[in-house]
Amino acid sequence: MTGGKNSILILRERKAVDIVPDPISKKNYLDLPAPGLSDNRADVDRLRQELARVIGPVSIGPGIMNSVSRVLRESGWKATATVGVTDSGWRLVDLEGGDTTARHFGIAVDIGTTTVVVYLVDMRTGEVLDVEAGYNGQIKYGEDILTRIFNAGDSEGLGLLQSAVVGSLNELIADLSERNGIDGKEISAAAVGANTTMVHLFLGLDPSNICVAPYIPVVNSPGIVEAGFIGLGVNSRSPVYIFPSIGSYLGGDVIAGVLACGMHRRDELALLVDIGTNGEIVLGNSQWMVACAGAAGPALEGGVAASGMRAEMGAVDSIRISPETERAVYSTIGEKSPLGICGSGLVDGIAELFLNDIIDRSGRFRDGRDSYLVVPSGESGTGSDIVISQVDINNLMRTKGAVNAAVDLLMESVGCDLKELGKFYAAGAFGHHLDIESAVTLGLYPDLPRDKMVRVGNSSGEGARMALMSLQSMRDAADIAANITYFELNASQDFMNRFVSSKFIPHTNMDYYPTVKKKLADRKLLKI
Amino acid sequence: MTGGKNSILILRERKAVDIVPDPISKKNYLDLPAPGLSDNRADVDRLRQELARVIGPVSIGPGIMNSVSRVLRESGWKATATVGVTDSGWRLVDLEGGDTTARHFGIAVDIGTTTVVVYLVDMRTGEVLDVEAGYNGQIKYGEDILTRIFNAGDSEGLGLLQSAVVGSLNELIADLSERNGIDGKEISAAAVGANTTMVHLFLGLDPSNICVAPYIPVVNSPGIVEAGFIGLGVNSRSPVYIFPSIGSYLGGDVIAGVLACGMHRRDELALLVDIGTNGEIVLGNSQWMVACAGAAGPALEGGVAASGMRAEMGAVDSIRISPETERAVYSTIGEKSPLGICGSGLVDGIAELFLNDIIDRSGRFRDGRDSYLVVPSGESGTGSDIVISQVDINNLMRTKGAVNAAVDLLMESVGCDLKELGKFYAAGAFGHHLDIESAVTLGLYPDLPRDKMVRVGNSSGEGARMALMSLQSMRDAADIAANITYFELNASQDFMNRFVSSKFIPHTNMDYYPTVKKKLADRKLLKI
Repeated sequence: MTGGKNSILILRERKAVDIVPDPISKKNYLDLPAPGLSDNRADVDRLRQELARVIGPVSIGPGIMNSVSRVLRESGWKATATVGVTDSGWRLVDLEGGDTTARHFGIAVDIGTTTVVVYLVDMRTGEVLDVEAGYNGQIKYGEDILTRIFNAGDSEGLGLLQSAVVGSLNELIADLSERNGIDGKEISAAAVGANTTMVHLFLGLDPSNICVAPYIPVVNSPGIVEAGFIGLGVNSRSPVYIFPSIGSYLGGDVIAGVLACGMHRRDELALLVDIGTNGEIVLGNSQWMVACAGAAGPALEGGVAASGMRAEMGAVDSIRISPETERAVYSTIGEKSPLGICGSGLVDGIAELFLNDIIDRSGRFRDGRDSYLVVPSGESGTGSDIVISQVDINNLMRTKGAVNAAVDLLMESVGCDLKELGKFYAAGAFGHHLDIESAVTLGLYPDLPRDKMVRVGNSSGEGARMALMSLQSMRDAADIAANITYFELNASQDFMNRFVSSKFIPHTNMDYYPTVKKKLADRKLLKI
Repeated sequence: MTGGKNSILILRERKAVDIVPDPISKKNYLDLPAPGLSDNRADVDRLRQELARVIGPVSIGPGIMNSVSRVLRESGWKATATVGVTDSGWRLVDLEGGDTTARHFGIAVDIGTTTVVVYLVDMRTGEVLDVEAGYNGQIKYGEDILTRIFNAGDSEGLGLLQSAVVGSLNELIADLSERNGIDGKEISAAAVGANTTMVHLFLGLDPSNICVAPYIPVVNSPGIVEAGFIGLGVNSRSPVYIFPSIGSYLGGDVIAGVLACGMHRRDELALLVDIGTNGEIVLGNSQWMVACAGAAGPALEGGVAASGMRAEMGAVDSIRISPETERAVYSTIGEKSPLGICGSGLVDGIAELFLNDIIDRSGRFRDGRDSYLVVPSGESGTGSDIVISQVDINNLMRTKGAVNAAVDLLMESVGCDLKELGKFYAAGAFGHHLDIESAVTLGLYPDLPRDKMVRVGNSSGEGARMALMSLQSMRDAADIAANITYFELNASQDFMNRFVSSKFIPHTNMDYYPTVKKKLADRKLLKI
């Protein structure tokens, strides 16, 4: 799975929100006076004093002191210092002979349960130079999060899971480095958006209390960690900023998403929905924010549905059903022979099944069959039929029901109506790929004027890029995390009631979905 | 070599200078609210917030987070946090279940070229609980500093030298821990006084530029280093404070000495002299300070003189010569059979040789012999004669000449006269052991009213104890280092001239030494 070719993995807009560049690692070229009998300051002290003048206090650890001395002497006291931010100021990350300020790199990292993405960023401008994505190597220790939490129960298992994800990232970093002619040591900063469990496993922290009431993680705000501690294949002294989480089920990836869409900076009311294995929802504006999260179910994860696969070459990613023949017209990623259906294809297909009256409002096949044939075996690249099964539809109905119930509950809890929404943000890598019309048809997304609906792409990665480039963004993320009021849905009977009663397409109350109602009316399918 | 028995190794006064206790590691017992659905802060964040309330911002590294979580849960959210100072604030060193504030330990460390000393300090009170001393294990890679610098020229040699001194310290720490029923992990702070080369080797820094003009070390102010980086046998997250040096030849041990005697805090003019392989001299008061240092020669180091040995059991440490018989009356450390002569015995013996007119003012045996018999072979524990040779005397004359010349030059450079001195501090372990009368007789020390002359004992170790116990002392040390004006003697022709012309006992100008003049007159030996 190579990035750059696959649209799901590319940031929608490189500068979705203006950032004043103030990156978390900085490079400064220094021309130091050579020592002599009348200026006998020691090498490290000489450098430290010059950095204090240029940047402010910089901590220089003992592990880099020999290198400082050697580089200063070899370069004739002309060298470039790279400093990185810590929890309490700046520290020296590297010292290179001569002027290397033109080469200043960082990585923005999105660690998903399934997929990891690394963006190579030019720290001078914030530009994404390249991107690489791959599977999270933890998959071999469990497809789903709960299995991984279980397997991390002893320190050996925890170590394996940590190595697995770091190994996956390091492969991507090595590929990016090679392709762009840079050395891993030249990468002097990293920022990471990930859910709470992924952060725990990335740092080697025991996640076992995450899934047990009262759902208390080891840490929500790990802050800035040194790359060497993690074993990340960048300069070992690089700062690795990790987005804070709100709790076990509302992770830093969502905070990064809020940061990326900028809803925390505007007065208009906005709703952010990120649907993956978990559904995470944030509602608010610059004044206040509420959020909730819940297991959305694995309906949209590749590999769960009958013919499911991840969003890779050969995945059916869009489906239209001919009203006349009831047969599917589909497209695949990379226009390859179809191998399976990815999440967005599934949503598209089920929406079409509904709009063509093949399934009813509760998601059941009207004729009682157990699956719909999307690609016959003769056309498929696997030699097998590619289908959407009743089980797939039921799974999606649960996801949709959970999202519906959560959005309704959250809106109601703050006394807001969907009409008041100024913006709806479809966050997360999946949100970027999904057809908005199909998602609205199924009720996954609210039925708002389309100009209010924004796909923010890989919002976790984009938030990470912003944090790389701006200390203020990092502080904003802390403020967002501190100010969000979190509703624990797992403990709410009200949520369960709504969840059970909301498993209708697109919603129990059809009036919330005027465009869907109109589509059904146009097709003479409106039976109420 | 066991401390506690050997007076050279014991701090002269445990509280030579009043310190307001404000130690560099602190323990706080915390009774945290247990988490619940209405207080779902993560474990580490919960602790961090409580510490912020009690102490201020405390950084909690990822390496301790699992332990924080485990300890908090096992202890029912009642635990004792140990925090240690860093270059930029506090960090968590340890978290122990329950209230362990009664057990709070630190070590003050003096790393000498020959001997290392570790004081176990009760961090609640500053009291020295125990002391242990031993040889610096680097001796096997070279008796003298220059050989060690040479052997540290490649990274393998440097590694061996670093391991050697850390190994020596760790043996002492293990002995102290066992004897006092504590675990090394309970030692949460260390402070180190050492000369510049010893600091380099302790931290694994390349010392090779120290002995090459313009004599620039890698670092003078290493600041605070984590114990784990060094491999010191205390809690791996403990702060290890290292006294700043002024330059290659004026080390942190001298700054610690200044701190210990308190001359930087008083208006009276004071002179501090620390004689070892190097002679280090500091002159000044609370307003200003000047210093110089120079190779004093190894005359006083054990093992260099013909019958030389270190200040151990069986060393002849004082000598009187009977004017009638010209035979020596001596005492030994531990009252054991004599095995050799230590530095203080040598000074005593040569002073007596001079006062008995056996050697002349230039240090030559009047009768042309090449040695003086202190202990005949029949009385000695080795079966060999123990002697003071002409070579030993010549070596001491060089040391004495260097110290004389340096003191004179320093006094003259600031326009001061010895009469203006309010205090003379005999610093360093050797200074504590030396007989002041004999040192004055030879001109090693100036001839001042004896109530102005103070032996400050192991001033490096005492300064380290003060730094352990007081953040202000640590800041004072930085101020002292920053404010001392250093005179580079190696580059001074004036010094060389004075050095050559000052090799007379006690001084070229006998009028500077009124009590010696009187002694000689009393013995009818005053020939001028």
